[in-house]
Parts: sequence; structure tokens; C-alpha cells
Amino acid sequence: MFPLNTWYVAARSEEIPTGRPLGRRICNQPMALFRSSAGQIAAVEDFCPHRGAPLSLGRVEGDTLVCGYHGLAMGCDGKTVAMPCQRVRGFPAIRSFPIHEEHGFVWVWPGDTAKADVAAIPKFEWLGNPAFAYGGGLYNIGCDYRLMIDNLMDLTHETYVHSTSIGQKEIDEVPCQTRVDGEQVITERFMTAIEAPPFWKMALRLNGLPDEQLVDRWQICRFTPPSHIMIEVGVALAGQGGYAAPEAVKAASWVVDFITPETDTSIHYFWGMARKFKPQDQALTDSIREGQGKIFAEDREMLERQQLNLLAWPERKLLMLNIDSGGVQSRKLIDHMLAAEAHT
Amino acid sequence: MFPLNTWYVAARSEEIPTGRPLGRRICNQPMALFRSSAGQIAAVEDFCPHRGAPLSLGRVEGDTLVCGYHGLAMGCDGKTVAMPCQRVRGFPAIRSFPIHEEHGFVWVWPGDTAKADVAAIPKFEWLGNPAFAYGGGLYNIGCDYRLMIDNLMDLTHETYVHSTSIGQKEIDEVPCQTRVDGEQVITERFMTAIEAPPFWKMALRLNGLPDEQLVDRWQICRFTPPSHIMIEVGVALAGQGGYAAPEAVKAASWVVDFITPETDTSIHYFWGMARKFKPQDQALTDSIREGQGKIFAEDREMLERQQLNLLAWPERKLLMLNIDSGGVQSRKLIDHMLAAEAHT
Amino acid sequence: MFPLNTWYVAARSEEIPTGRPLGRRICNQPMALFRSSAGQIAAVEDFCPHRGAPLSLGRVEGDTLVCGYHGLAMGCDGKTVAMPCQRVRGFPAIRSFPIHEEHGFVWVWPGDTAKADVAAIPKFEWLGNPAFAYGGGLYNIGCDYRLMIDNLMDLTHETYVHSTSIGQKEIDEVPCQTRVDGEQVITERFMTAIEAPPFWKMALRLNGLPDEQLVDRWQICRFTPPSHIMIEVGVALAGQGGYAAPEAVKAASWVVDFITPETDTSIHYFWGMARKFKPQDQALTDSIREGQGKIFAEDREMLERQQLNLLAWPERKLLMLNIDSGGVQSRKLIDHMLAAEAHT
Repeated sequence: MFPLNTWYVAARSEEIPTGRPLGRRICNQPMALFRSSAGQIAAVEDFCPHRGAPLSLGRVEGDTLVCGYHGLAMGCDGKTVAMPCQRVRGFPAIRSFPIHEEHGFVWVWPGDTAKADVAAIPKFEWLGNPAFAYGGGLYNIGCDYRLMIDNLMDLTHETYVHSTSIGQKEIDEVPCQTRVDGEQVITERFMTAIEAPPFWKMALRLNGLPDEQLVDRWQICRFTPPSHIMIEVGVALAGQGGYAAPEAVKAASWVVDFITPETDTSIHYFWGMARKFKPQDQALTDSIREGQGKIFAEDREMLERQQLNLLAWPERKLLMLNIDSGGVQSRKLIDHMLAAEAHT
Repeated sequence: MFPLNTWYVAARSEEIPTGRPLGRRICNQPMALFRSSAGQIAAVEDFCPHRGAPLSLGRVEGDTLVCGYHGLAMGCDGKTVAMPCQRVRGFPAIRSFPIHEEHGFVWVWPGDTAKADVAAIPKFEWLGNPAFAYGGGLYNIGCDYRLMIDNLMDLTHETYVHSTSIGQKEIDEVPCQTRVDGEQVITERFMTAIEAPPFWKMALRLNGLPDEQLVDRWQICRFTPPSHIMIEVGVALAGQGGYAAPEAVKAASWVVDFITPETDTSIHYFWGMARKFKPQDQALTDSIREGQGKIFAEDREMLERQQLNLLAWPERKLLMLNIDSGGVQSRKLIDHMLAAEAHT
Repeated sequence: MFPLNTWYVAARSEEIPTGRPLGRRICNQPMALFRSSAGQIAAVEDFCPHRGAPLSLGRVEGDTLVCGYHGLAMGCDGKTVAMPCQRVRGFPAIRSFPIHEEHGFVWVWPGDTAKADVAAIPKFEWLGNPAFAYGGGLYNIGCDYRLMIDNLMDLTHETYVHSTSIGQKEIDEVPCQTRVDGEQVITERFMTAIEAPPFWKMALRLNGLPDEQLVDRWQICRFTPPSHIMIEVGVALAGQGGYAAPEAVKAASWVVDFITPETDTSIHYFWGMARKFKPQDQALTDSIREGQGKIFAEDREMLERQQLNLLAWPERKLLMLNIDSGGVQSRKLIDHMLAAEAHT
């Protein structure tokens, strides 16, 4: 159960080089994503109207995707443009999907085309902002997208799942505050005068700051429906104002999470980090991505096994504690979208 | 949906050496194929009447297949012959299948035994003919057998799937002609004064002919129900009569395709090539087989992904263009067989 | 279909070290088995009442199993003991299972807790007896537990499945005798003046006995419901009394088989050997375990393929010959247990 009349991240731009299409299932719909020779991005059903071959096995020629089986040339709009020795006017069209590329991400709208509005694609401060550097990756994980939202909107799991990198006991001990602000759910936690965990000690050192001093640490998770989560995270040398401290005594960044349903029980998880410090340092970007990739891989087994448990015991109700309120409120916004779709 | 009252290739002879049985599912029926000590071939259900063990895990003794679990000795007719310390007269029989070995191929009849007629096994000019050399292999592919028939009865796919070996643009550009000749469908294409693609340049050189001249090229696909396809292919130096040119200026052979349904959505695909030139040259046979094996492996992903697409979108009608007429006519003959079976 | 109100072997003690839980599905129920810091063993459902995460991914602290996702501390009785910053009194309990550890084995009762009686755990002469050495292993096999019982209660299969180690033609030729003795099924076979097969020649040599003389050999299989089978096996130099011969001319041991249903069509198979000779010789124990492991692995393919056959042909009745009487009688005792459970 996911909203369809909304934008999801379909791919990173670099996944769709000129010439080579990308097959990807999004919201249960197999799509062939491709970039025309002129650079324009398109998404059509991954189904050739000739004999049902997957178009994503083909190649791009001009602004068409040429089927790799018998050469049908599919246009960006799902209409056949040409086929050797054939008149194609009567060929049935396939679905094309509204798509939009911006700042390195490709967004797709799997629902009713008439309702698609590029203006509704969410904006984030770091996106396309040269003051930031972004690095990230993609994991395919076998769980309902909402389990991933729960995961990210309740960071007490860091204490347990990521105990060797970003977890620390104080996350458990300091209550979080959750509020709904229009179409956004915010859950935040501020810890004061604590020891920085290993990941943040590294970040302090990279910023030329001492890593053996106490720090103030914050986590501000912002959920935007259907499944985008930006988490402001950082530490400042203790007693300098914490989140409000001057940049010079801080290490801070955005954890970036775009969650795209693949099927009812699997996701494309686009994770990444956008940082404001040393944005030109590509080696640093790579190093952070590698570290983050390892940390985020630690969630996979937990999420997939949790999913299997929920499938095995569908009648069991889960608890909704204060730490779960971020996920609970996020699901309410999702349910609202689903209800709105059902009534149209 | 496949005809059952017909002969299919079950195995190459070399797959069933004396002593060691072969387990193979044919038309959804698990069979144990074995060769008696005297060399006689047999096929029975792969199910021991004692406790249901697969007989194909056993071994051959005399003209029986001895179960590898508790030693029941099964006869070629599906009746238990003996078992240590047991009287076996009352043991239930299992099915045996009409089977026939000829010229290196083992044919099986999965349907009504009473209707089996060895005389109905198809004959081909190259089979058992010392003027020809045959080399081939077996692929297990996850698709309906009719998708493989479509593939082979429309060689325009060579241009796309096999672009580096036997494909060339001219296949797309020259229309094919399809006709039904009694119980045979023939689809053929003749290209004149073209450059030979890499595979045929190699064949010309092997025949001591120049490979840089223009050639005439032909493809004559002959389908015999339920799923045998012989394709006459070749090139002649241009302007010497093409298909009718003298042997001395030609490189030609038969592509041999026996397609045996394993399940509703998988096949045993016996591919090979029978050639009339240098039939004694075993190294050449091996070299051709290796090359052909690589080319034919290129179809696998396309066919399996096409099958998945058709399962996902069962309601979609496929197009039937002129290039598809070979497959369309072949399916008509198959439907005719299926209808005949349904009325008996 | 397996009895639930009974004890099964859940694990070897060494599989559950202090601190690290073990996830294992037993009789279709996913369990988290763990050992408290004080060494006490416990089994609870592998489902955290907070959000459904598998508890077996957590860690042990004191006498609780701490969930690896958000830190809920589960007690041995299935009641939540604590969770950071939470009041847990109202948390729903999960099932805990009666469990008992004895002589290196952990027994679990998957059924009605009120009926569990530790006194009903079966006793075996070799268990915890310093005159014996035990070595064994665990195989996960894809078959109904009763197929494994059939296998072990009819050793004629050794002639075929284990022909290179413990099989020999004489097993087939000497009839077995089966009797029911209260809650036990005994099937036995005595062979006199035969050549020892390779495994037993090795055992004779290890006992300082000649291996080229004829021997008397015995196999006494004892089944106790629901699925425990102890097999007395051995050889004595021929003519010295066979099974009753003095220890000095014998090589003998117990084959130990505990079969625990994992699902309807898979088992945890705890196999091993308990021997009375040279019990202090650990290298000998290891060597025997390695040899036995290889032999018992030979059954896997047969059992799994037999299971697939029975699923494919569910309507077929299996034969029940005299050699099958051990399995047949064992199933009667099981059916009796199942009927008793159905009436309560």
C-alpha cells in the first residue's frame, strides 16, 4: 500500500548514462528508464508492444529506445516511432510515466499522469547547492517501505544496530520530541555534554577540531510524504550553543534518505549524506560514502527479518511507544494520502 | 499447453551411457531414462513404487533399473522385476513411456501409449547421413516452448540479439516469405550481394573461399510440429546462383533445433548444426559447436525475461506482423494438434 | 503433522554459548533460544513485542535477551523486563517454551506448557555416562520427519545408499524382525559369519582386532516417539557369540538420531555416535564424527528428492513391506500421539 500519485526517486542520474537503458520495478510496475541522445530522460513500461520483450534490454537511438529483440523503436511517450519494414501507426501504445531529472536525481510519478506536477517535487536546501557535497548509494532491501521509515524516524536503533559507529547509550536515555508541521513530521533529540561516538570523532578531526572533548549532539529527522527523510545530524564542542553553535566548532551534515517502493515488500533505498564542510573534497566524499554504506548495510538483516516476522504473524499489533511517534505520525500522513487517492 | 501424443527429443544418446540413468522432466512428467546392459533404451516414471524414491538416483543392472534406496529392480515396462527378499507380483506398476533411439537422438512419446507409432518420428536429410557432421548442445531455458519457436521462425532477431556474429542489417531489410506446406511451415529470406557477417566469413575461410567478396545469403526455416525446426542457412559468392549455386562456391549448413517442453514455462532446447562440408573434421565440429553455443546463449535472457513479462501481463495481446508469420503459422499447426487431442 | 506435546532436541548445548542467542524454527514456530549469564537456558518466540524484530539477532544481558533493534529486554518467561525510558508493564507477553538442558542436549516442548513434564524427557544409557564418548553433528534436510524415521528403521538402504562404507549385500539377504515393546519399536537384524564392510574393518583395527576375519554383525534399531532412534550396531569376531560375545572381541556403538521437525517438510537432524570403547580418545571421536558425517550426508539427496516426489504425487500409496515394518510401526505410535492430542 503506497501512494501512486506522487513523486519517487527512480534513480541517480549516473545510473542512466546516454545509450544504455535501466530496467527498474517501481511501485510494482516494471519500467524502462532511458536517456535520449539529446540527454532527455524518459520512462516507459518495460514491455515491447510487439512481442512483450523487456525494452530495458535494448539500446537508445536518438530519442527512441530500440527493442533488443526485433528492433521496434519506442518513443518517450510510449508510442512506437518505427520498426524495420513495418507501418507502426496502429501499434498499441504502452504507458509512459511522468519523469523529471534535477540535481542528479531522477524522479518518477507512477500514478495518474494527468495529476503529475513537477512543481510538487520536493526541494531540499542541499540539493543543487554548491555549498554542499553529496555522496550516496542504493540498497535493495526486502521490506515494506514503511518499515524503513520507522527505522529512520526512531534513531534509538542506532544504539543497538550501529553500536560501533554512531550508536551510543545517550540516544536511548534522552527522549525525542515529535511534532507534525503541516506536511512534515519532525522528530528530534538533543544530547548535551556527551562523548562523541567513533563516526563523529572522525568528523571532528576532519574539521580540524579536537575529538577528545565532550560534545553536544543533535538529530533532527524530517519526514516528507510519501517517503523522503532528511536528518540533520551533528556535534558541536560542548557548551558553545549546540545546534546553534558557530560553524567553526561544529561537524554537521544531512543524512539523505529517499525510499522508493519496488514491490509491496521491497524497496529501493537511496541513502546518502550531504555535508556543508569541505564540499570540494572528493576524497572526503568518497570516504564518508564508504563509511556510511557500511553502517547502513547493518540495517538490512534486521529489516528483512522483521518483514518476514510480520508476514508470519499478520494479526499481531505492534506497540507504538513515544520513541515510535515519528514513524506513527509519518504513517498517518501516508494514510491520508492513500485515503485521498481512494476517493478519486 | 503442448501436444502429448507426439514424439519429442528426450536426450542425446551420449547423455544415457550404459549403467547410469538420467532423470529428466518432460512435458511436466518426471522420467527416469536408462539404457539396459544390452543397450536398449527405456523410460519410466521417476518414482519407485516401493517408497516414492526417484529411480533416476539408482543404477542399471541387466535390463532393470535398480532403485538406489532399497534395491527394487524396475523393468523397462514399468513393472517391478525383483526386490531382495520380496515377492513383487502384486506391486503396482508405474508408467513407462514409448521411446526410440535413432542416429544419436532419443525420442520419447509422453502421451497415450496406444497411439505411439515409431514411424511417425520425423526424418531429416542430415540425420544418420555420413555426408553430414553434427555437433550440438542442450540448454535449459525458462520459457514456454512456443516463445522459442517464435524466436527461430523470425530471424530478424539476429540483427539485434546476435549483432556481433550472425546478425546484419540486411536481415531486417529483406522481407521474409512464409508458406504452409502440408504439415510444415516454411519461412525464408534471400539476401543478395551483401557483406557476409563474421560467422559466415569464418565459414567461407574454412571452406577455402575468399571472405572479403560480396555474398548471397539465405535462411530457410522449416517447422514441423510439435516443435522441430530445421534452418537451412548459408552463403555463396555473389552472382553464382545464390542458394542454387554450385557447392564449390558455398558455405552452407542446417541449424538443428529440437525443443522439448519441460514444464509449461521451461524447455530443454537441443540446438546444433549439421554441415555438409568437411564432415570428418572433428576439430571443426567442436569449433563450430563452441561458436554456436555462445551465439545461442545470447537468446536466453531475452526469452526468460519475455516469459516473465507475459506472465505479468497475461491479458496483453501480442502483435502478429509479417515477420511473425512463421511463428503464427507454426502455432496454428500446434493448435490443430491440441484440438485433435482434446477431441479424443 | 507432528505431535506438539512432547520433547524434541532443540540444539546441542555448544550451539548456545553464553551471550549469543540462537534462532531456530521448531515445529513451524520460530524460537529464540538463549542462555542467561548464569547459564540458564530459555526459549521464547523469535518476535519482539515492540516492533516484531527477531529477538535472536539480539544479545544476552543478565537473564534477559536484549532486542538488537531498540533494546527491549525480554525475560525467560516471555515477559518484557525493561526497555530504555519505557514502562513495560502493559507490554504484551510472547510465548515462552518449556526447555531443559541435560548431558549436552537442549530439549524443548513446543506444545501446551501446562502439560510439559521434564521427567518425560527420554533417558538413554549412553547419555551422561562417562563410559561412553559421543560425537555428532546437525543436518538440515528438506523432508517430512517421518521419511527420516522410515530411513533409519529400515537399514536395507545401507546396501544401496552407503555401499562404500557400511552397506553390504547381506543386509538385504537377512530378514529383519520388528516388534513393539510398549512405547518402543524395535527392529533388528543379525548377520553371521560375513565379511565386515569398510567402516567396521576400521573399527576393528581401532580396537586392536584383526579385520580380515569373518564377523557376526548386528543392527538393533529402537524407536521412541515422537522421533528418537537409537541403533545398536556392531561386529564381533565370528563364532564368539555375536551380539552376546565378550567385549574383547567386539567393536560396537550406538548410532544416535534425534529428529526435530522444522516445518512440515524439513527437519533438524541431530546425528551422532556414542561408543563404549576408548571413550577418552578425543581424536578418535573426531575421526568417527567426520566419517559418520560423510556417510549420513549420502541420505540427503535421496530424502529430499523422495519428498518432492511425494508432494508431486500425493495420491499414491506407498508399499509397506516387511522391511518397512519398523517405520510402519513407528508411525502407528506417532498417529496414536496425534490422535491423543486431537482429543484434548
